[in-house]
Amino acid sequence: MSPWSAARPGDPVSAIDTPALVLDLDAFERNLERMAAALRGTAVRLRAHAKAHKCPEIARRQVALGAVGVCCQKVSEAAVFVAAGIEDVLVTNEVVGEAKLRHLVALARSARIGVLVDDPRQVDELAAAARELKVTLDAYVEVDVGAHRCGVAPGEEAVQLARRIASSAPLRFAGLHCYQGSAQHMRAPEERAAAIAAASDAARVTKRAIEALGIGVECVTGGGTASFVHERDSGVFNEIQAGSYAFMDRDYSDNRLGAGEIAFEHALFVRTTVMSRPTAERAVVDAGLKASSVDSGMPGVWRRPDLRYVKASDEHGVLATPGAATVSLGDTLMLVPGHCDPTFNLYDELVCIRGDRVEAVWPIAARGAVL
Amino acid sequence: MSPWSAARPGDPVSAIDTPALVLDLDAFERNLERMAAALRGTAVRLRAHAKAHKCPEIARRQVALGAVGVCCQKVSEAAVFVAAGIEDVLVTNEVVGEAKLRHLVALARSARIGVLVDDPRQVDELAAAARELKVTLDAYVEVDVGAHRCGVAPGEEAVQLARRIASSAPLRFAGLHCYQGSAQHMRAPEERAAAIAAASDAARVTKRAIEALGIGVECVTGGGTASFVHERDSGVFNEIQAGSYAFMDRDYSDNRLGAGEIAFEHALFVRTTVMSRPTAERAVVDAGLKASSVDSGMPGVWRRPDLRYVKASDEHGVLATPGAATVSLGDTLMLVPGHCDPTFNLYDELVCIRGDRVEAVWPIAARGAVL
Repeated sequence: MSPWSAARPGDPVSAIDTPALVLDLDAFERNLERMAAALRGTAVRLRAHAKAHKCPEIARRQVALGAVGVCCQKVSEAAVFVAAGIEDVLVTNEVVGEAKLRHLVALARSARIGVLVDDPRQVDELAAAARELKVTLDAYVEVDVGAHRCGVAPGEEAVQLARRIASSAPLRFAGLHCYQGSAQHMRAPEERAAAIAAASDAARVTKRAIEALGIGVECVTGGGTASFVHERDSGVFNEIQAGSYAFMDRDYSDNRLGAGEIAFEHALFVRTTVMSRPTAERAVVDAGLKASSVDSGMPGVWRRPDLRYVKASDEHGVLATPGAATVSLGDTLMLVPGHCDPTFNLYDELVCIRGDRVEAVWPIAARGAVL
Repeated sequence: MSPWSAARPGDPVSAIDTPALVLDLDAFERNLERMAAALRGTAVRLRAHAKAHKCPEIARRQVALGAVGVCCQKVSEAAVFVAAGIEDVLVTNEVVGEAKLRHLVALARSARIGVLVDDPRQVDELAAAARELKVTLDAYVEVDVGAHRCGVAPGEEAVQLARRIASSAPLRFAGLHCYQGSAQHMRAPEERAAAIAAASDAARVTKRAIEALGIGVECVTGGGTASFVHERDSGVFNEIQAGSYAFMDRDYSDNRLGAGEIAFEHALFVRTTVMSRPTAERAVVDAGLKASSVDSGMPGVWRRPDLRYVKASDEHGVLATPGAATVSLGDTLMLVPGHCDPTFNLYDELVCIRGDRVEAVWPIAARGAVL
């Protein structure tokens, strides 16, 4: 990691070394409050997805505003949040292999831990590992409700797995994981609504079939930033897994909002400096693809519609500066990352600003926790 | 970072936790030796690009085999290598801003440090910072020889900058930086040869024009893994900046080799586990875009032509497993990263294997050093 920090609390924003990952606390707090308000008075709770930020300070603020806990995508990531005092962590993933299972069940000594399954072998191995350590573990059946990644088909296959979990103490059958990931990036609101209507139908049918066996389905969990109002209103989901809502990235803001959908603000930025101005049509900034992940496209340039970030190499970003764009060597700009999750994963620290001051620097403690 | 390591020295390869970044030491050492052999007996030296690996243990091995030192892309990255004892580091980038300049010149107390310029203001600010700290700094003029990123135009503009450096003690005018980055990923060998022929002409014209003023041009540096034989044979370059040659990634191996070009081996892998096998046509592995950078396309699946990595999300990789592909839950596979540089930058440790044993685990000490 860098031998020095990009900033210290109390610094003026203008003194932040670049590139740096910057959180605008005012916008961030408004996003947290907007999500809390959107779920207030409903039977649906938030389980914030911590894979987005990997930062315990953020998780604590999400829990303080009503989140039941967090989701993680990896066992080692979950371990960081449990060590930081988060008491309820769902690993929204299948976990395979003896070493990983040993680490996973160990966490259940200090926190409520959940995990997904989509294969009977996973159920048996989880149960054996939990039994050996004498801990209880929540197991969810992952149902493929349209994303076509992991998960069993809705209906009978899911019912069989639920039955197997229910008879595999000390596993607890905790419910269904029904995340429609591909709906999150559909641009048109009608498309998203239709995708979640189909996902909700699949979840409902599966839930009823399991309940018909006398097995309770305590939780149906899923949903993301771009779709959660539909899961909230579905009557079948009772837990939402949004993560990006707190930050917003360029990709999410490319979605068009429909009636009743919630607008979140850009709160996450990569602060960057113009380090080369070789021609009138081109400026080069010090934030490339190791500073802002490009898997979902190039970053936006905040409040500079006259500038376009057109190309990223490892440590360079090329801006097109057509016409009368005024930008000079040494100027600083704020980029809106194309995808917030992998961008957080590039940084060890998050520089939190309020107005023109650095208020705090938070460790991104689970950065790189890929195991 | 992950609270535990993926492996320990002495472990069997089969016990490596996944996903893990794995270096096949035999192939790696053959690559290092092949590069040394390709430059032996020439007047051209290697300055290995450490942005590729960010790992001092690797830099030490490159220097032991004849590299004059390393390049880095960032000041904080350079600081890590200087602290690890590398005595000659060229920051192949423009450095702008007071804080960065302070850090840069401080390094020149412990090592020979070079840096690029493409603007007179950079020359003046570098000189002032070096003067204040009473250190000498090598300054290179970056010339745009075809990549159209940073750099001044060949010829007169470069001459003016060289002259300014030469009269700005304690800066030393060290030479020209002429990296043709876009040539590295041209698939056809004739295209690469033509691009480097043009770059070499531009470098030669500029060098002669500077020499005509009585200013010596000690070094012309550039070249990358896919083009370096052309720079080596150009008669004008005397330093090569290759980095990926030691590892090879899927993108570099998509280039077709021409006569006289050197074949390097895949030595870098992401070891991954099949964590879900939801349908006959699909398997899901635990290495997504936070485990293998996808900026240059999807990873390859090593020695499994029957499998194709078709889609990456944060922590999932979807494999197409058509027809009779046999792959089961819990199987491990080796992926060939699409682009090695940003993939190194995702990991804190490199698991070094020889045959079926883990021989060492090296820290990727400059990972995340983006300042």
